Amino acid sequence: MSILNFSINGQSLSATKLETKARSFSFIIDEPPTLGGNDEGPNPVEYLLGSYAGCLNVVLHVVAKELEITIQKLNIEVNGDLDPNKFIGGSSLNRAGFQNINVNIDIETNVNVEQENKLIETAKSRCPVNDNLSNTTQINYFSKSKKYNLN
Amino acid sequence: MSILNFSINGQSLSATKLETKARSFSFIIDEPPTLGGNDEGPNPVEYLLGSYAGCLNVVLHVVAKELEITIQKLNIEVNGDLDPNKFIGGSSLNRAGFQNINVNIDIETNVNVEQENKLIETAKSRCPVNDNLSNTTQINYFSKSKKYNLN
Repeated sequence: MSILNFSINGQSLSATKLETKARSFSFIIDEPPTLGGNDEGPNPVEYLLGSYAGCLNVVLHVVAKELEITIQKLNIEVNGDLDPNKFIGGSSLNRAGFQNINVNIDIETNVNVEQENKLIETAKSRCPVNDNLSNTTQINYFSKSKKYNLN
Repeated sequence: MSILNFSINGQSLSATKLETKARSFSFIIDEPPTLGGNDEGPNPVEYLLGSYAGCLNVVLHVVAKELEITIQKLNIEVNGDLDPNKFIGGSSLNRAGFQNINVNIDIETNVNVEQENKLIETAKSRCPVNDNLSNTTQINYFSKSKKYNLN
């Protein structure tokens, strides 16, 4: 399969609300009142954690099929601690994003725990979202036809 | 403001479909038919790109307020190239995730381009999702009460 390009387009509807389109789909991103929003949808970092769980679901099933493992049940909980002071106030010694991310996998299969762990480790190493969260990625910014790289 | 914990819970409904809950919200993640799914929602990496745009929307407005800049219009398009062969087939020299991410900001304000660029640069540096995508993050896995670190 050749390299794929994925894209989304977000229209700002308020200081916290973004109407986001991906192909034929649309979803609302907002913030809870404690972070200045009207709570009309999950917030950006909740979608980030959800995208990770969604990606693991796909790759776990791809790898399970290769290893001839049957997944009978799969629940993925993802959480992380974040210091909001950097984005709200600008001053914090902590990083802006999640300091760490925790993934809790509740899986039932027809194989033993060692084989389940091999399944999870292999899926992790091939999960696109895991790659972009674990490792550095070049990000290019374009604004008003002027390209500038802020990395 | 103290450190916040964000979490989501995803229930696998099929090999590609995840029902994801964040507080009182629920959203469906799926894959298009070309990637083995039934196209019942945006796919994981589209949510990832959307979360980035949603985060930039919030932080751009926070920083604009600090700099006394009025944002009259804001549209954020985010895209990236991804080689699906690693997660589908397991063999590829390319990384699993986005090779790079491009952010196209269409903004209208009451200030000049130099001040807009300062706004964007400052917002980028304080955006949580930008931090987690640009830099490395520790990720911990837990499965069946057994913690193991796969970084």
